[in-house]
Amino acid sequence: MRDTIRIIGIDPGLRRTGWGIIETLGNSLRFVASGTVTSDGDMDLASRLRQLHDGLEDVVHNYRPHEAAVEQTFVNKDAVATLKLGQARGIAMLVPARAGLPVSEYAPNAVKKSVIGVGHGEKQQIHMMLKILMPKAEFKGNDAADALAIAICHAHNRGGDRMRKVLASA
Amino acid sequence: MRDTIRIIGIDPGLRRTGWGIIETLGNSLRFVASGTVTSDGDMDLASRLRQLHDGLEDVVHNYRPHEAAVEQTFVNKDAVATLKLGQARGIAMLVPARAGLPVSEYAPNAVKKSVIGVGHGEKQQIHMMLKILMPKAEFKGNDAADALAIAICHAHNRGGDRMRKVLASA
Repeated sequence: MRDTIRIIGIDPGLRRTGWGIIETLGNSLRFVASGTVTSDGDMDLASRLRQLHDGLEDVVHNYRPHEAAVEQTFVNKDAVATLKLGQARGIAMLVPARAGLPVSEYAPNAVKKSVIGVGHGEKQQIHMMLKILMPKAEFKGNDAADALAIAICHAHNRGGDRMRKVLASA
Repeated sequence: MRDTIRIIGIDPGLRRTGWGIIETLGNSLRFVASGTVTSDGDMDLASRLRQLHDGLEDVVHNYRPHEAAVEQTFVNKDAVATLKLGQARGIAMLVPARAGLPVSEYAPNAVKKSVIGVGHGEKQQIHMMLKILMPKAEFKGNDAADALAIAICHAHNRGGDRMRKVLASA
């Protein structure tokens, strides 16, 4: 017997961290909510990280997902940008881990392949496919859309884990 | 009138994060404690970040420092190493921020200059100077020693802040 699994996808960034919540039951997907947590660029780094933490913690507390997925960031920028992204990403992984959720990581091309069928594509294609896969999906901006795509990627790739859980509880 | 200020210095790293607690009153320094929080390299990244978080949170809870200082990491490694360090550093800044502490950042050469008088030097020189500045200092390993050096750097550089506080409370 299969249960509905609620998944949070997170697209980390120091200025804007996108999040998306979906539910999966077998092959069906259902949109629950999405949004963006922002940090104030005029504040010091520690305060900004705390803003991201508190915002994500609220989301996890309000929607109570069972599993989390975070984008395995593409590191093609300069070292300063990579360090900033790493700091935001540390928070994005910590919050669900502290809530007791298993946290999976997916590479950007795996995420795109899950949503649009190939490992590359434009933002606009992701938006269109999200609407086809989940007609009721609502998202403002690329960060929330990317976070929903990450959640869908996890829904498609968590089969092995789910099967092990089914066997363990049989 | 000046108060004793308790400072935590943190040297972040995904495998080992060093911490050191000192007290400063005017120009005098007093060693309180030091140690290293480690994460288990066999565990997934989210669990390791949680280990660092929980370990640092225990230290902050046990020693109740007033202010925190974190090394502003030198980014001269490859992108993957920089991203890892960034993730650990995000946790190192988040924990004191969540506890309500102001968190300052210092560049490695500023830290060395505070302890050994010049902006470069060997680990062994830092160890020797720590013992001269704080004869009762105890530290095992470079991470804890570096963290104490970061705390000393903050003690030497927080004058402006202290003066503002003195004026505010006058």
